[in-house]
Amino acid sequence: MSSNQFGRVFCLTTFGESHGAAMGAVIDGCPAGVVWKQDLLEGFLERRRPGKSELTSARNESDRPQILSGVYEGKTLGTPIAMIIPNLDQRSQDYDPAKLKMRQGHATDLWQRKFGHSDPRGSGRASGRETVSRVLGGSVARMMVQQLFPEVRVIAFTESIGGICLSEDEISSAVTRLHSDTWAIDQQSARCPSLEKNAQIDELLRNAKISGESFGGTVNVRVLGLPSGLGQPVFGKLKNSFADALFSIGATTALEIGEGFAGSVKNGKQFHNSTQDYGGIRGGLSTGDPVSMRISFKPTSSRAEVAKSGRHDPCIVPRAIPVVEAMIWLVMADHILLSRLDRI
Amino acid sequence: MSSNQFGRVFCLTTFGESHGAAMGAVIDGCPAGVVWKQDLLEGFLERRRPGKSELTSARNESDRPQILSGVYEGKTLGTPIAMIIPNLDQRSQDYDPAKLKMRQGHATDLWQRKFGHSDPRGSGRASGRETVSRVLGGSVARMMVQQLFPEVRVIAFTESIGGICLSEDEISSAVTRLHSDTWAIDQQSARCPSLEKNAQIDELLRNAKISGESFGGTVNVRVLGLPSGLGQPVFGKLKNSFADALFSIGATTALEIGEGFAGSVKNGKQFHNSTQDYGGIRGGLSTGDPVSMRISFKPTSSRAEVAKSGRHDPCIVPRAIPVVEAMIWLVMADHILLSRLDRI
Amino acid sequence: MSSNQFGRVFCLTTFGESHGAAMGAVIDGCPAGVVWKQDLLEGFLERRRPGKSELTSARNESDRPQILSGVYEGKTLGTPIAMIIPNLDQRSQDYDPAKLKMRQGHATDLWQRKFGHSDPRGSGRASGRETVSRVLGGSVARMMVQQLFPEVRVIAFTESIGGICLSEDEISSAVTRLHSDTWAIDQQSARCPSLEKNAQIDELLRNAKISGESFGGTVNVRVLGLPSGLGQPVFGKLKNSFADALFSIGATTALEIGEGFAGSVKNGKQFHNSTQDYGGIRGGLSTGDPVSMRISFKPTSSRAEVAKSGRHDPCIVPRAIPVVEAMIWLVMADHILLSRLDRI
Amino acid sequence: MSSNQFGRVFCLTTFGESHGAAMGAVIDGCPAGVVWKQDLLEGFLERRRPGKSELTSARNESDRPQILSGVYEGKTLGTPIAMIIPNLDQRSQDYDPAKLKMRQGHATDLWQRKFGHSDPRGSGRASGRETVSRVLGGSVARMMVQQLFPEVRVIAFTESIGGICLSEDEISSAVTRLHSDTWAIDQQSARCPSLEKNAQIDELLRNAKISGESFGGTVNVRVLGLPSGLGQPVFGKLKNSFADALFSIGATTALEIGEGFAGSVKNGKQFHNSTQDYGGIRGGLSTGDPVSMRISFKPTSSRAEVAKSGRHDPCIVPRAIPVVEAMIWLVMADHILLSRLDRI
Repeated sequence: MSSNQFGRVFCLTTFGESHGAAMGAVIDGCPAGVVWKQDLLEGFLERRRPGKSELTSARNESDRPQILSGVYEGKTLGTPIAMIIPNLDQRSQDYDPAKLKMRQGHATDLWQRKFGHSDPRGSGRASGRETVSRVLGGSVARMMVQQLFPEVRVIAFTESIGGICLSEDEISSAVTRLHSDTWAIDQQSARCPSLEKNAQIDELLRNAKISGESFGGTVNVRVLGLPSGLGQPVFGKLKNSFADALFSIGATTALEIGEGFAGSVKNGKQFHNSTQDYGGIRGGLSTGDPVSMRISFKPTSSRAEVAKSGRHDPCIVPRAIPVVEAMIWLVMADHILLSRLDRI
Repeated sequence: MSSNQFGRVFCLTTFGESHGAAMGAVIDGCPAGVVWKQDLLEGFLERRRPGKSELTSARNESDRPQILSGVYEGKTLGTPIAMIIPNLDQRSQDYDPAKLKMRQGHATDLWQRKFGHSDPRGSGRASGRETVSRVLGGSVARMMVQQLFPEVRVIAFTESIGGICLSEDEISSAVTRLHSDTWAIDQQSARCPSLEKNAQIDELLRNAKISGESFGGTVNVRVLGLPSGLGQPVFGKLKNSFADALFSIGATTALEIGEGFAGSVKNGKQFHNSTQDYGGIRGGLSTGDPVSMRISFKPTSSRAEVAKSGRHDPCIVPRAIPVVEAMIWLVMADHILLSRLDRI
Repeated sequence: MSSNQFGRVFCLTTFGESHGAAMGAVIDGCPAGVVWKQDLLEGFLERRRPGKSELTSARNESDRPQILSGVYEGKTLGTPIAMIIPNLDQRSQDYDPAKLKMRQGHATDLWQRKFGHSDPRGSGRASGRETVSRVLGGSVARMMVQQLFPEVRVIAFTESIGGICLSEDEISSAVTRLHSDTWAIDQQSARCPSLEKNAQIDELLRNAKISGESFGGTVNVRVLGLPSGLGQPVFGKLKNSFADALFSIGATTALEIGEGFAGSVKNGKQFHNSTQDYGGIRGGLSTGDPVSMRISFKPTSSRAEVAKSGRHDPCIVPRAIPVVEAMIWLVMADHILLSRLDRI
Repeated sequence: MSSNQFGRVFCLTTFGESHGAAMGAVIDGCPAGVVWKQDLLEGFLERRRPGKSELTSARNESDRPQILSGVYEGKTLGTPIAMIIPNLDQRSQDYDPAKLKMRQGHATDLWQRKFGHSDPRGSGRASGRETVSRVLGGSVARMMVQQLFPEVRVIAFTESIGGICLSEDEISSAVTRLHSDTWAIDQQSARCPSLEKNAQIDELLRNAKISGESFGGTVNVRVLGLPSGLGQPVFGKLKNSFADALFSIGATTALEIGEGFAGSVKNGKQFHNSTQDYGGIRGGLSTGDPVSMRISFKPTSSRAEVAKSGRHDPCIVPRAIPVVEAMIWLVMADHILLSRLDRI
C-alpha cells in the first residue's frame, strides 16, 4: 500500500532511510509549465538542514538535491519530478544498537516487531531525516501555488519552547512583520520572532544541549492569500487535509485550527462574533481569510548518552518549521488542482 | 475525485443531502465472513439520532437502515455493503433561504460560489445529517474489528461544555467505569460521566435552547485493547489517520493525541517519564497501550430565529460522540487490514 | 480494497447482488452543473434490460432507477450521485444450487473458495445483472461528456455472432448511418446493422434458445468527436484505460484497438501509411480521429437445463453493447476531467 | 494525478525522460522480508537492454541499477524501494528536432499540444527507455511472488513477426521446454523458440535494419503455477488487470486472454468443452490452471533517416518480451497481496 504517498492529485511519494544511499521524492501530478526555481528549492532545503546553528544536531550534510526527471529547460514537463539527496554523512558507528533501543519516544522496537526486519541505523526510515523529502516536495508545491496565486504566504514561527511563550501581541506583530518576507524568521536562532523570547529560548536550549535535557514547544502558522472555496466535502475538507499533513510529522501531538480549544469554552455569541473568522476555514472550505493554526511538538529524547554523541537536537521545534511549511504548501497545491474539477 | 470516501482498504463512500431522498453508505473492502450484527447497527444509529433528548434538535427520524447488498445469511460477502436511510422528515419549508444565508459558521455561500449550484435545504450535503452515513460505516467497522480483536473498546464522553469541565479524577473514574459497557454513557443526558457536571451542563443547555444561545465543548476519547504495530510509515501513521478522520467532522477545531499541548511545556525528562505512554502511539504506530485523545468542538450557530424553529442543537458535543466513535472504528478497521500487508 | 470502483476522478462505485435488495451505483467526482437527463438515463437502462426481445433472457424487470442524492433542480450538485434499482424479480427458486455449480464458465466454486461465504443465487455479485450499475454510471458520464463536447459519439454494434460476420463494407456503411443516431442499432434484434446478417443471427439465436446452444461474437466500436490529447502517461494511457474498462466486463476475451492483430502482420510502410490513423490513439493519447475497437465475447453457458428455465441468453453480445458503451463513456469522462490537470 | 503509478497495493511509480539524468522506479507497498536477489534484478535488466544483439538498436547502456532505499542486509524493509539507472548515453545530438516531428506513430506533437512544454529528445518520457523502470519494478515483484509461490512461472516468446508465425505444435513444444528455464528463450536472437522460424525472422530483421523497414508481431504468454482465486470483483478482475498492464506498453494494439477471438466463433459446446480451461481465468479469477495470452505489437517507425542513425529497432517484439513479463509479475504481486484482504 502506498503509505509513503501524500496528496491525491499533486501526489508526493517519499523514500529513503537515514543511513541508506539517499533520501528522495517523486511528485506525480505536478502540471506542466511550472517555472522551476532552483534557488527556492535549495533555500528551502538549507532552512531544514541540521547543523545550521549551534542549537541543532551536528550532522553535516550538503543536502544538494539532484533533479532526475520532470524538469526541462526551466519548466516542469507534467511528468514525474524525481529528486534525490545522497546521504553523505552516514556515521552509523555513532549509533550503538544497544543504546538505540533505549531512545525514548522512538519506535525501533515497534518497527522491528511489525516488519520483522528493520534498519536500526539512525532510526532508518523513521528518522527525522525523512522530512527532507517533504521539503523537496513542498518546494515544488510552493513554485506551483505561487505561480498561480502569487499572493499566497505561509508564515510559521516558534510560539513557545519549554514554556517560554509569545504573548498575543507578539504573535500579531510577528505576523505583520513576516508578511513581506516569510523567511526572515530564520534570522532568529530558535525561529522565535520576539528578540527577548528568542534569547531566552536560545539560552534554554544551549544549556539543554550540554545537560542532555530536551524540550517541546508549539508552532504558530498563518496562511495568507489563499483563494476561497478550497476544500472538498466530506472527507476532503481543507481542515482534515491540514490535520492529516501535520500529524504525519513525527513529533506532532496536537493541532488547533482557528481558535481551537479556546473556542470550545466560548458561547456561540462570543465565538461567532469574534474576528478570527473561523480560522479561515468554514464548512471545511477556505474563506479567503487568513488560516491560523497552532501545532504542538513533544520533547525529543533526553538521554545524556545521546546528547554526548552530539547528533541530537534538544528541541525539534525550530527545525520543524520548514517541514510544517512544506506540508502546508503540499496541501494547498493538491486542493488548488482538485478545485479545477468542481464544476463542469 | 472521490472526496466522499474514507479509508484505503476498508473503504467507506458516503452520499446524501439532508433533504434529498436518502442518506447512504457503501463499504467496499470489508472482508467476507464478518458476522452481521443488526442490533449493533441499529443501536449505534439510535445513539446518533436527533430528537432523542430535549437537549437536541427535534427532527424526528426513524433512521431505519436498509441493507441493499453485501450481506447474506448473516455474514458479509466480501462484496460492497450498501446501506441507506430514507429522509422521511424533510420539512424544508422550515428553512427560509433568506435566513439560511445568515446561519453563522455555515458555508452555504461558499458552497454556492464553489459549485455554482447547491442545495440550500438544511445545508444539503453539508448538513450534520451527513454523519449518519459515518455511523453506518463505523458500525460495520466495529463488527469487523471486534470479531478479530474482541477486547477493543472505544470510550468517548463529554469532557467539557461551555466551560463546565471534568477533573482529571472524574476522567479516570469514567474510563474505568465505561470499560465494561462503553455505551453506558448514554444514560447521561449530555453524555458527561459525572452526575454533577452532567446536571450543570443539562441546565446550561436547556436554558440555551430557550434563549437561542449555543456552546462548544470537548470530547475525551480512549481506545483500549488495540493491538500494537498498527499504523504505516510515513504518511499513514495511526495518528494522522485519526487526525484526518476526526477533523473531517464538521465542527471539530482541535485535537490532542496523548498529552497534546500539555506535553509541549514539559521537559523531556518529565514527558518521557510520564505514565501516559505517548498516548498509545509511538513513532506513528500503536503501542498496545490505551490511546487517549481530546477533541474540541466549536459552538453551533446561535441565532434566535433558528432556535425558534426548534430544529437546531444548542450544542453539538453530546450527539457528536457516536460520530467520533464511528470514525475511530473506521480508522482501526483500515489499519488492521493494512497491517496484513506488512510482511511477506 | 475498493475493487468495485472504476475511474480516478470521475469515480464510479457499484454494488448489488442479483438476488439481493437492489443494484446500485455511486458516482463521486461528477462536477456540479451537469444538466440531468432523466430520459437519457432511462433510455440507456431500457437498452440493457433483459427480456426486451425474444433473443434474450426473460427476466422481467422494470429497472426504474431511483436517484437518491447528488441531483437537485435538474443539475448535478458536485456531491455523490447515488442511484439504485430494486431487484423486483428475484425468483431465486429457479436456481437449484446443485445445478448452479455446473454452470459452465461461471465461477461460483471459485468465489466460494476465495471468500469462504458467497451468495449462490443467480451468481450473486458475479451475475450479469451487475452491469446495470455500469449503465447507471455510464449514463451520467455521457451527460457530462456531451455537455462539454456535444459532438462525441459512441457507435457500437454486433460485428459477428457464431461466425456470421459483417464485411468491411458493411461495417463502414454502418458507422456512417449510425453517426446521426447511435441508438438506431437497437431496431435490429441482434444489434447487427446489416439486415441480412441480422436475420441470419436472429434465426441462429432463436434455434439456440430452443436447443440450449450458445454463441460468442464480436462487437465493433467507434468513438467519434473525441478531443485530442486525452490520456496520461505512462500507466494512464487512453488505450489501457479502455482495455481495463472493457476487460472488466464478464464475458470479454479479447480487444483490438485500431488495426489490432491485423496490424501485426503488416510492415511499417504499410501500417503507417494506412488510413486508420492508429485507431485514433497515438502514444497513448487521443489524436482527435475516430477511435476504433473490436471486442470478443465468449459463448455463454449452454446446458439444456439452464435453457429450460428460460432465464439465460443464448448469446451475450447484443445485450453487452450498452454495457460496452457505458464503460467507454466512463473512460472518457474520467480522462476529460484528468486533462484539466495537465497544465498550470 | 498519479498516472505514472501501477498497482493498488504493490504500487510502482516510475519516472525519467530518456535523455534526462536517470530513469527510476519506486515501489511503495512491497512487504518486509522479501529476500533481495540482485542477480535476478540485473539479469532481468540485461534482457531488456538495447544493443544486445544486432537486431536491436545500438544504444549502449550499462543499465546498472542503484538501490537507493528499502533494502537492508539482503531483505526488503517494508519501506519504499527506490531504484535508479543513470542515463549515461545521452547522444541527444542524434535527434534533430525537425526530423523527430516526422517519426511515424510517435506522439511528440500530441504531447507538445497537451502539455504546452515537452522534452523532444528521444521522445522524452514517451521513449521506450521508460520500460526499464517497469523491469525494475517487475524484478522485485518476481522476487516477492516466487518467495511465496516458488512454482510460478511466466513464459513469453515471439509467436510471429512480419507474418512469420509459429504453428500450434511449435507453441506447445516451446511452453514445455521453457518451463524449466523461462529465460532460455533469450538464446534465440528474436526470442522465437523455433530454430527455423527464428532464423527466418532474424534474416527479415537484418534486412529491415539496412533498408529502414520495420515489422510488428505477436507475443505468446503463459503464466503457470498461479494460485487459484486471484482477482477481485468487479473492476479488479485478474483479466482487466492484465489488460490494463499490457495495454500500457507503448506499442501494444491487441490482447487475447484464453482463446480470444477464436473462441468468439465457437458455439458454447465447443468452447466450454475445449481444454484451454478458459485461459486460466474464470469469472475474473485465476483458476489455478495456466493463463494463456497473446499480445499484438504494431510495427515501429520505418523511415530511412531514422534507420541510418542506427538507434532504432526494426521490430520491438523481441525486446518487449521482458517488459511484458515484468508487467505480469507486477499484476500478480498486487493480486497476491490483495487476496490477503478477502476474508476476515
